[in-house]
Amino acid sequence: MCGTENGVASQAPNGTHPPPNPNAATAPYHGVEDHLSNVGRYKIIESTLREGEQFANAFFTTEQKIKIATMLSDFGVDYLELTSPVSSPQSYEDCKTICKLGLKAKVLTHVRCNMEDAKKAVECGVDGVDLVIGTSSFLRQYSHGKSMAMIQTTAIEVIEYVKSKGVEVRFSSEDSFRSDLVDLLTLYKAVDKAGVNRVGVADTVGGATPRMTYDLIRTLRGVVGCDIETHFHDDTGCAVGNAISALEAGATHVDTSVLGIGERNGITPLGAMMARMVVSAPEYTKTKYNLKMLKDIEEYVASCVQVNIPFNNPITGATAFTHKAGIHAKAILANPSTYEIIDPSLFGINRYVSITSRLTGWNAVKSRVVQLGYELTDDQIKEVTAKIKQMADIRPLAIDDTDSIIHAYNMNLREEKGI
Amino acid sequence: MCGTENGVASQAPNGTHPPPNPNAATAPYHGVEDHLSNVGRYKIIESTLREGEQFANAFFTTEQKIKIATMLSDFGVDYLELTSPVSSPQSYEDCKTICKLGLKAKVLTHVRCNMEDAKKAVECGVDGVDLVIGTSSFLRQYSHGKSMAMIQTTAIEVIEYVKSKGVEVRFSSEDSFRSDLVDLLTLYKAVDKAGVNRVGVADTVGGATPRMTYDLIRTLRGVVGCDIETHFHDDTGCAVGNAISALEAGATHVDTSVLGIGERNGITPLGAMMARMVVSAPEYTKTKYNLKMLKDIEEYVASCVQVNIPFNNPITGATAFTHKAGIHAKAILANPSTYEIIDPSLFGINRYVSITSRLTGWNAVKSRVVQLGYELTDDQIKEVTAKIKQMADIRPLAIDDTDSIIHAYNMNLREEKGI
Repeated sequence: MCGTENGVASQAPNGTHPPPNPNAATAPYHGVEDHLSNVGRYKIIESTLREGEQFANAFFTTEQKIKIATMLSDFGVDYLELTSPVSSPQSYEDCKTICKLGLKAKVLTHVRCNMEDAKKAVECGVDGVDLVIGTSSFLRQYSHGKSMAMIQTTAIEVIEYVKSKGVEVRFSSEDSFRSDLVDLLTLYKAVDKAGVNRVGVADTVGGATPRMTYDLIRTLRGVVGCDIETHFHDDTGCAVGNAISALEAGATHVDTSVLGIGERNGITPLGAMMARMVVSAPEYTKTKYNLKMLKDIEEYVASCVQVNIPFNNPITGATAFTHKAGIHAKAILANPSTYEIIDPSLFGINRYVSITSRLTGWNAVKSRVVQLGYELTDDQIKEVTAKIKQMADIRPLAIDDTDSIIHAYNMNLREEKGI
Repeated sequence: MCGTENGVASQAPNGTHPPPNPNAATAPYHGVEDHLSNVGRYKIIESTLREGEQFANAFFTTEQKIKIATMLSDFGVDYLELTSPVSSPQSYEDCKTICKLGLKAKVLTHVRCNMEDAKKAVECGVDGVDLVIGTSSFLRQYSHGKSMAMIQTTAIEVIEYVKSKGVEVRFSSEDSFRSDLVDLLTLYKAVDKAGVNRVGVADTVGGATPRMTYDLIRTLRGVVGCDIETHFHDDTGCAVGNAISALEAGATHVDTSVLGIGERNGITPLGAMMARMVVSAPEYTKTKYNLKMLKDIEEYVASCVQVNIPFNNPITGATAFTHKAGIHAKAILANPSTYEIIDPSLFGINRYVSITSRLTGWNAVKSRVVQLGYELTDDQIKEVTAKIKQMADIRPLAIDDTDSIIHAYNMNLREEKGI
């Protein structure tokens, strides 16, 4: 359970770009080993076809489900989670169809913790059944009305049934962070003893903070011996921060969906999680995942559910690798690691240094001048930069505009010299 | 420095909706006081007009800057940060103009740590000058080439100058998380002694995790007596998680921008931060901010920089309060707190329970049947729900479609009864 062999890499924010940080040994937190951490051996449970189907705009056809499942399996996720076969006749058929594809990823389905649902799940031929029940007082009062004792009795019965069929089984509470801690630990301890493969912790309402997450998972890590899966909604913007904190505290699995689609504003997005993990566990992440597929997967799912890729999406957002301010642009041209923690080429994406604004610095302009094949002195480049900034103060510039300014400046020079 | 009077509220994820959690006293982490925390008294430095201007698409006119500054001041932010007046002649004029507006929010400008820039800043009439210099080995090598000793000497000279003019002064390192920890603490201790108002910690490349943040800020909190400002880029999706962790560790100020716009994919978004803080510090946040203005502010800035509000934006994303799965919808109708950590009405937004999918449960359909004025038994509602799910298995449904199914079912019933 203690993933220490990747401990050093997992703590260091550098290492993705070629030149190593000469200060590495003394930079904060670098080299601090953490014996609880599973950062260097995390597993992804990809839930676009379950949590993602709960997204308001989602209506996946069978063909779309097959394509998404296949792409995600090829991308390298460990598990695919599907909508409960009890939800509708088509959900049942689709679950069976995807189980028969023979994908590299294991196929799970997510059902309520009762015998009827579990039987239907096993019938479909899944590799694993994800059982879920609400344990918070809110859910016990307003959703299913069951006591903790009843929950435990049913859970063990269902777990034993699924195991008897040779199928993996996970038991998850819902709204774990608003559940009574002692009740929760008692329940998890009992299902662990009953031989469950994983317990699941879910921040169903998206209210947890990274420290709450770290503390709960660390406590749970001391109580159960099985794997720990985590599921974070993003209502308060912490779904990625909570996921990395959970892995640091000893969680083994993180649930994601493509672009984070799910109930309300969704869960930990697969892409943002990859951005986080390629920094926190670079070697493992680069080896295990076909990172260059990410953009296509996101674009395909976005088209299925008719949304745009958010402009501020990590990695694939339109401007994720665009550098604009003068001081940034100067340094990025000298060494990309100065202002990039992620090498965009890992994801098949290019960086772009903007020289069209009033924040432009002359170093960025110099780089463009060289690209255009002109030979200007630094003083001349500073002069043309002043012209660009002056124009950018008046109206938005396109790259064509700045090129025109550079061309014009160069032409004037040649005329002055009589060339 | 120790914000404990809001400690209980700041630790509890519940409290935003009317019925209190009956389990509150024993729910995890509720009631744990934290003497370092400033969660209950955090301050916002709103940097849409500085960091936001570094966003690839940003070209703010003077009129737009005035409108954005005024809206943000009315919203309730403590500080507005503006682009350096050294950047361009128009930046200089706009800085002076905004200083003269007499806004409630204090006006800052963000300049390189040298005497020339500081003088220009003071000249504009700002309330405070935010000094910045890169301290990581990357930036020292590839950006400005200065040694730590030189940085410290210059910093103290500039700080003393700004203070002598009766203007607030902050000193921030850039790329703090990749700087040598001992160098960083030495520098901050020296500038604290020189009487700086705030020191700033910046995750310039967006690589920090919440635990790295918590540890660095907690350490720094023991070294300096002044306020601590924090700035988080979102390259790895942790900008909000890091901000809350920083406040928990004793930071006093968080930088935000509207929709997070900034270099690359930007920084901690104002809206997501409000979502986080209305949960972590409900009373303080609801009292201090005009939360109902958030949507208008986001829409205005989005129109200025020509982006769409991301579909998965906390609070204002199109589906942030849409509930779809059957088990969710049933409980949310009984008590919104079951699946909502944030009350949408605080932000002037309505919730929506979807009944148009194959995941629809009969409780949600019942609610719609009642809204439409029909009187059906539970068995009849289950029957009409089956019809909706059957149809939704075939094609995407609009709310009109489900209403038609309900109308048709009711009409059939009346015909059968001969009404």
